[in-house]
Amino acid sequence: MTPQIDPDGRLRHLLTLDGLPRETLAGLLDRAQAIIDGVATRPLAGTAICTLFFDPSTRTRLSFQRAAQRLGADVLNFDASTSSTTKGETALDTLHTIEAMGVRGFVVRHSADGAVAELAAAVAPDTALVNAGDGSSAHPTQGLLDMLTLRQAKGADFSGLTVLIVGDIRHSRVARSDVQALRSLGTGTIRACGPAALLPDDATLHGCEVSHDFDAALEGADVVMMLRLQRERMAEGLVSSLDDYHRDYGLTAARLGRAAPDAVVMHPGPMNRGVEIDGDVADGPRSLVLRQVANGVAVRMAVLEALLA
Amino acid sequence: MTPQIDPDGRLRHLLTLDGLPRETLAGLLDRAQAIIDGVATRPLAGTAICTLFFDPSTRTRLSFQRAAQRLGADVLNFDASTSSTTKGETALDTLHTIEAMGVRGFVVRHSADGAVAELAAAVAPDTALVNAGDGSSAHPTQGLLDMLTLRQAKGADFSGLTVLIVGDIRHSRVARSDVQALRSLGTGTIRACGPAALLPDDATLHGCEVSHDFDAALEGADVVMMLRLQRERMAEGLVSSLDDYHRDYGLTAARLGRAAPDAVVMHPGPMNRGVEIDGDVADGPRSLVLRQVANGVAVRMAVLEALLA
Amino acid sequence: MTPQIDPDGRLRHLLTLDGLPRETLAGLLDRAQAIIDGVATRPLAGTAICTLFFDPSTRTRLSFQRAAQRLGADVLNFDASTSSTTKGETALDTLHTIEAMGVRGFVVRHSADGAVAELAAAVAPDTALVNAGDGSSAHPTQGLLDMLTLRQAKGADFSGLTVLIVGDIRHSRVARSDVQALRSLGTGTIRACGPAALLPDDATLHGCEVSHDFDAALEGADVVMMLRLQRERMAEGLVSSLDDYHRDYGLTAARLGRAAPDAVVMHPGPMNRGVEIDGDVADGPRSLVLRQVANGVAVRMAVLEALLA
Repeated sequence: MTPQIDPDGRLRHLLTLDGLPRETLAGLLDRAQAIIDGVATRPLAGTAICTLFFDPSTRTRLSFQRAAQRLGADVLNFDASTSSTTKGETALDTLHTIEAMGVRGFVVRHSADGAVAELAAAVAPDTALVNAGDGSSAHPTQGLLDMLTLRQAKGADFSGLTVLIVGDIRHSRVARSDVQALRSLGTGTIRACGPAALLPDDATLHGCEVSHDFDAALEGADVVMMLRLQRERMAEGLVSSLDDYHRDYGLTAARLGRAAPDAVVMHPGPMNRGVEIDGDVADGPRSLVLRQVANGVAVRMAVLEALLA
Repeated sequence: MTPQIDPDGRLRHLLTLDGLPRETLAGLLDRAQAIIDGVATRPLAGTAICTLFFDPSTRTRLSFQRAAQRLGADVLNFDASTSSTTKGETALDTLHTIEAMGVRGFVVRHSADGAVAELAAAVAPDTALVNAGDGSSAHPTQGLLDMLTLRQAKGADFSGLTVLIVGDIRHSRVARSDVQALRSLGTGTIRACGPAALLPDDATLHGCEVSHDFDAALEGADVVMMLRLQRERMAEGLVSSLDDYHRDYGLTAARLGRAAPDAVVMHPGPMNRGVEIDGDVADGPRSLVLRQVANGVAVRMAVLEALLA
Repeated sequence: MTPQIDPDGRLRHLLTLDGLPRETLAGLLDRAQAIIDGVATRPLAGTAICTLFFDPSTRTRLSFQRAAQRLGADVLNFDASTSSTTKGETALDTLHTIEAMGVRGFVVRHSADGAVAELAAAVAPDTALVNAGDGSSAHPTQGLLDMLTLRQAKGADFSGLTVLIVGDIRHSRVARSDVQALRSLGTGTIRACGPAALLPDDATLHGCEVSHDFDAALEGADVVMMLRLQRERMAEGLVSSLDDYHRDYGLTAARLGRAAPDAVVMHPGPMNRGVEIDGDVADGPRSLVLRQVANGVAVRMAVLEALLA
């Protein structure tokens, strides 16, 4: 593992929330909240940040781009998934080339587990990488923005909370980063629920209450985190049909009644309405979905600032 | 219809020129002219504007992007037509997501009639949409830039003018916005000409002099507005061949001789040279084509400023 | 040929290094070096620069984009190779349209020889074009950055140097611009080496020592410039196999031993590791590959500043 914290405790890259010290994590959340509360500066004026996406994601790229703009940085977008010029070039050569152009901050997405950490191990001492999602391993800024959203809704003490994560946890980097952050912040109970084929068979859910019964898992939950169902799970035979999935694991208003009276609902987006979540829940008063998106910009500003300012 | 003017007369969105008060329209033109004449400011510094194109158009996107840059705004480009991440997500969810990132200005193009107004009905009170073209309904900034170009060429009083619009009016949002604006500004005579299959069968041309004979329609016209012939009209069987179209409705230098001696020629671009317009006319002294493009940036600055500053 | 120097000696466009006065070339290199050494300004604030690529190249586009950003310019990117809106529109109409939007600086790449010079002949007096590569004719900023890199490594006096260019010189605009610049700067000996099918049969290599024997050509070379082997050369039957090519013209560490003891290695990128260059050479102490990329931004800043400031 590439160290993302340097010997004197400074954040060098952000690759994963796994093992990120609680004070570092809380410090990033505090800074994001301060940004939201109006501490406006442009500390990265003159700095260039490159979004380097080997796997496309317009939504995440836009959020990082807006964060970089608000920090005053210049943004270069490189969609490596469609670039023909990089054919035959390794991801590392591409990164080193853009680094040589004087770019010090990279926001990197890759379809392979560990690919971003591998790149981070090979960059110059003053170059910083933010993992914008690698394989099904980690999506640390999504984890951070979820924690900030939770903190705003439920307060900074998570010890009394029951948080339920529902869906395709096996393939979800969001779920992994969320579980790591929830553990780090001392969450009382973490529940995980989904069909057996979509639950991980590794240590991801260590210490979590795992179940296949959504109705039972919802009982008394304070927070319900729904995951997106990728449609390719059908082709892979892991899910029989969207209807079946909705029947067993779709969050409906009726189902949400089983959760705590003041339960909140989260989803990383983009949502499949009518599949893992019903429209009236997504748009309802319990939904924090758009609050998550808004917090995403602030959290990414806090991270880029911590790495580059 | 979503109101684009709020109760106290302020422009909230720009969706169509249909029913836009004459003083609002003229005010936007005045402001655009002032921008051209050198009133330079950056009133949108720190503001983000997103070009959200569900239907691609590089030319229109670039014009809005340059307008936003000159106003000092940060620009986010979202080409929703090629984004795979938005698959399965509704246009409204996409818009709400980017809105949640703190973006207040959207420039939206969509292939469906009314789609932009529908989105405008669902946004936050301080979010403004500019319709950059929806279906064959409206392209209001094109209408405005055409009016500004006309005003520069012929003066602000349109009551003595004969304006001729030629071509595929049925499918043209440009023609609809132009006709609405020409009416609003009190144009003396509006003529419309094209093959029957390409003329609208609704109220679009109410009050216009409609004809299928281009030569006759040209007699004494002060302004000739040519429309682009989309090549798919051939596949749809609405036009027999490009040669036939050029013979009947192509603007040649000889034909232009029938118009008023100081007649001017306009075209929204991109031009099919040798189809609806000959190269020597397009590049000739009567052509205002590039002036239209130049005015486009100023008009879009005036609109974005009116909506967001 | 469009004049790229105006009557009073000012650079009007940058289209080729062929015939560029030595003092102009050296002046651009001096300015690029000054930029690297820390002379920071934003002389192009408020100016718009459009990258207009009729042939895609993410790497070159990013380098120009970063250069423009560092000069304070606003950047518009137009990938004409993927834009559907420009179908049926000529390259000149596209250029004139963006020019009409108030853009004065264009960075243009085109697949056809001479296409950029042809466009330059038709623009407004205050519009400047930079050739970012046309066909196999010229890539002048690559030539400039290579010269800057050489000057940093070997000093400004090239009269004692032996420079070897290896590979597909026939199809390489980089090689043409390099040879022109090396001649202009009075390089002692220019050698060219490659298989017969990949060497030009025109005057490109006039005055160069031409050979097909890589090992012999390497003897005593101070500088080894490797060219990228485009994989389409195989399909065209000009190269039998990548393995054969590597055996005959691939730069290995062993082969490099034949060059001068302090020989340096250059490559314009992207590299085909294991084909024209081995990874240990590309990443070794003699390699200037990333230094070339870094100099590219400074050289492009110097050029854009010379044309537009």
